Amino acid sequence: MSEMPAKPVSASVIEKHVYKVFPNDMNAHNTVFGGMIMAKCDRLALVVAERHSAHVCVTAAVDSIHFRAPAKGNDTLLFNLSLNRSWGSSMEIGARVEAENSYTGDTRHILSAFFTFVALDENDKPVDVPHVIPESDEQRRRFENAEIRREGRLKTREKLSSR
Amino acid sequence: MSEMPAKPVSASVIEKHVYKVFPNDMNAHNTVFGGMIMAKCDRLALVVAERHSAHVCVTAAVDSIHFRAPAKGNDTLLFNLSLNRSWGSSMEIGARVEAENSYTGDTRHILSAFFTFVALDENDKPVDVPHVIPESDEQRRRFENAEIRREGRLKTREKLSSR
Amino acid sequence: MSEMPAKPVSASVIEKHVYKVFPNDMNAHNTVFGGMIMAKCDRLALVVAERHSAHVCVTAAVDSIHFRAPAKGNDTLLFNLSLNRSWGSSMEIGARVEAENSYTGDTRHILSAFFTFVALDENDKPVDVPHVIPESDEQRRRFENAEIRREGRLKTREKLSSR
Amino acid sequence: MSEMPAKPVSASVIEKHVYKVFPNDMNAHNTVFGGMIMAKCDRLALVVAERHSAHVCVTAAVDSIHFRAPAKGNDTLLFNLSLNRSWGSSMEIGARVEAENSYTGDTRHILSAFFTFVALDENDKPVDVPHVIPESDEQRRRFENAEIRREGRLKTREKLSSR
Amino acid sequence: MSEMPAKPVSASVIEKHVYKVFPNDMNAHNTVFGGMIMAKCDRLALVVAERHSAHVCVTAAVDSIHFRAPAKGNDTLLFNLSLNRSWGSSMEIGARVEAENSYTGDTRHILSAFFTFVALDENDKPVDVPHVIPESDEQRRRFENAEIRREGRLKTREKLSSR
Amino acid sequence: MSEMPAKPVSASVIEKHVYKVFPNDMNAHNTVFGGMIMAKCDRLALVVAERHSAHVCVTAAVDSIHFRAPAKGNDTLLFNLSLNRSWGSSMEIGARVEAENSYTGDTRHILSAFFTFVALDENDKPVDVPHVIPESDEQRRRFENAEIRREGRLKTREKLSSR
Repeated sequence: MSEMPAKPVSASVIEKHVYKVFPNDMNAHNTVFGGMIMAKCDRLALVVAERHSAHVCVTAAVDSIHFRAPAKGNDTLLFNLSLNRSWGSSMEIGARVEAENSYTGDTRHILSAFFTFVALDENDKPVDVPHVIPESDEQRRRFENAEIRREGRLKTREKLSSR
Repeated sequence: MSEMPAKPVSASVIEKHVYKVFPNDMNAHNTVFGGMIMAKCDRLALVVAERHSAHVCVTAAVDSIHFRAPAKGNDTLLFNLSLNRSWGSSMEIGARVEAENSYTGDTRHILSAFFTFVALDENDKPVDVPHVIPESDEQRRRFENAEIRREGRLKTREKLSSR
Repeated sequence: MSEMPAKPVSASVIEKHVYKVFPNDMNAHNTVFGGMIMAKCDRLALVVAERHSAHVCVTAAVDSIHFRAPAKGNDTLLFNLSLNRSWGSSMEIGARVEAENSYTGDTRHILSAFFTFVALDENDKPVDVPHVIPESDEQRRRFENAEIRREGRLKTREKLSSR
Repeated sequence: MSEMPAKPVSASVIEKHVYKVFPNDMNAHNTVFGGMIMAKCDRLALVVAERHSAHVCVTAAVDSIHFRAPAKGNDTLLFNLSLNRSWGSSMEIGARVEAENSYTGDTRHILSAFFTFVALDENDKPVDVPHVIPESDEQRRRFENAEIRREGRLKTREKLSSR
Repeated sequence: MSEMPAKPVSASVIEKHVYKVFPNDMNAHNTVFGGMIMAKCDRLALVVAERHSAHVCVTAAVDSIHFRAPAKGNDTLLFNLSLNRSWGSSMEIGARVEAENSYTGDTRHILSAFFTFVALDENDKPVDVPHVIPESDEQRRRFENAEIRREGRLKTREKLSSR
Repeated sequence: MSEMPAKPVSASVIEKHVYKVFPNDMNAHNTVFGGMIMAKCDRLALVVAERHSAHVCVTAAVDSIHFRAPAKGNDTLLFNLSLNRSWGSSMEIGARVEAENSYTGDTRHILSAFFTFVALDENDKPVDVPHVIPESDEQRRRFENAEIRREGRLKTREKLSSR
């Protein structure tokens, strides 16, 4: 795999993907249904993973979804997703969702989440993907944090399985 | 209205909005249902119109939707929409949809369409919107073409109503 | 193609197709989502085109969708579609949508639109369709207007492409 | 209620309501999902009941839904519904669904069902509805059969409740 | 067929299947859309039938759906379905839907319905299914009532077809 | 809060909630769309949280969603959710999804996930919820593991925020 060229974050990034909220997006508490937002993130993260890997990809795990504030009727959701880091056949994709008030342009932070996708070959076996090249300070921070999150997950899993 | 500052196209543009096609997007001929693509364009054009006008907007008309090629299963649709021109309370928004092959990155042109939205005040009456500032050659071409399309529509309507 | 018998408008017409509006049909402004109405028109026009041509049909273009008035909660939408004219493998289908108040029976005009469908043979190549026979004055008016709209479209396209 | 004028079946009938089947209408056995067809019948029967009664109506019961044959991909469903008979505030609405082959025009019988709706006043209390006037032999047959079905239902209910 | 072992009701039963109502489940009268409830019952009854028969099953008929009370926004629906009796290749499945108030735990009866499913072999021909063993008094009551309902249906059908 | 009585896990548990997979649940790779499964888990976890707390609840976070194996067409999904532990106003709810083959009864593990919900009072402020009483060994294991997962999350968050 050494000759597979690394790719910059910008080659697969999704920025400010808009979604105008309609009444049928609401839950029983009359805020936007969180499950719908998660499902949209998953479908968008798939595009990031397939662009980066140039292979069919599947969701392997989702970590640390945090809902910061509820989205309301008449908001426009903004989805931002980028590839943070890759390890072998797996990739961490960060998602950040904001709600924009279309009339004032104000935004607020709604949700953060981290998806792990795995790339598959024609036989549905994992296949290595390119390394990612972080280009900005923010991208380098995400690249480092991805490793910290991964270590935290492995440590927790170890503790749980040793019981 | 003279003091309302004009806004550049970039302030409301939507570029490369992705949508991964799933089997439930298909029509009976097993290509992507055109009505679904139109509905998505309408919902996205609404965001462009509300960003530009900072008012509630409604679809007044749609012209010249052309389906160039069918989209297929496993395509990723790319929606591009921008404000071409405004007249009083109405705005022409152009939509261009492409299909991207996620694995090769190849794209092909699927659909073009032109939406006319009207901005409304609190009493649901039409309200004037800012002029738009085209900044690139492409944006200037669209600005001029919007006027030609508008004249064509008015001429056809005249002929039809004089019968 | 000379031996393909022409068909009357009545052989493929759709009249007073009802759709009771429910809350999940609403947009953020709490009127019926225009994109949903367009998508329904497209799906119904497909039936008209396939009945007339007896072939698989695809949407080629949509022109002059005009939203006259918003539809509201509790309205019943009435869809009327008929084949206006055919040229070779292409057909213009007119759509008129009204909103009916179920309790008083009052109706108001919501939307007009003109769809162009193309009939395809087994190899997905365009195939000629029967001529249409207008039988009433209204159908004859639509038959003539279809030609005027078509000329208007061609003229506008010419102007745009010569720039 | 004696002065409420009776209404003919034709004043509320729904005939040949078309629905083009798409892949997302299918069940796991790859025929059209019966629950979707029932739900569509219920939504259409509501329109018949509200037209006849000029009141808000609700489904009280559904009897004798029979699935005669499965509908397949590429079929066009045809829904036919008419008011068979009324008793006080309740109405029996018959539904008959056929599947049309768009290319040959052949139809086959898919489903029959009988819905009972109740009309409500502003306080959600049952309110009497007009009598129905059957005008054709077929409508008179349905008018008589509605009574037989009603008696059968009452007799069965009696037997069940006496146990 | 003598060697096919009978199965208890408990082997295929569905109890307290929850569904939290959201705004997009509402009808125009702002109660839960009855057609949606029927469709969900049909999809759940399919699971009961396939578990009991270990074959692909299809809906043959639905009888005696009674809506007892409307479900409202914020209710949690509880679906209960069990196999009442089988005859050759056909099975009666009873459905009972309740609405639970999540905060107080109170429930009320929303709907009862009886579905008849038929099991199919690999050639889509009806195939015999196991007998069912009712184990509780309630299950034995349902087992007996299924026969009474069946006789009532046959008697009504006879009367209708002899006319 | 000392007088709020603790509740057993069984008072809010959801077991073997079935969902028969249909073709419109599929993703582009023709396995069940993971985002749909997550959204369903979220909607079911809401019921568990509201039953336990007797208050309106909202999703605060989701951790450690692991997709173990893809679900396929014709599978029946089985959702199992239970309250693992509570801290003040927040609750960890574990979800385990299996796929059942309806004809053989075989099941396989599809997904595990841990949701954190927060209970709200009438002013949308967090409100304390009852403690949970684990009653079986499995429930006690989950009760302990919930604390380990929580500590792992807090430790990772600390490391990330100190950078």
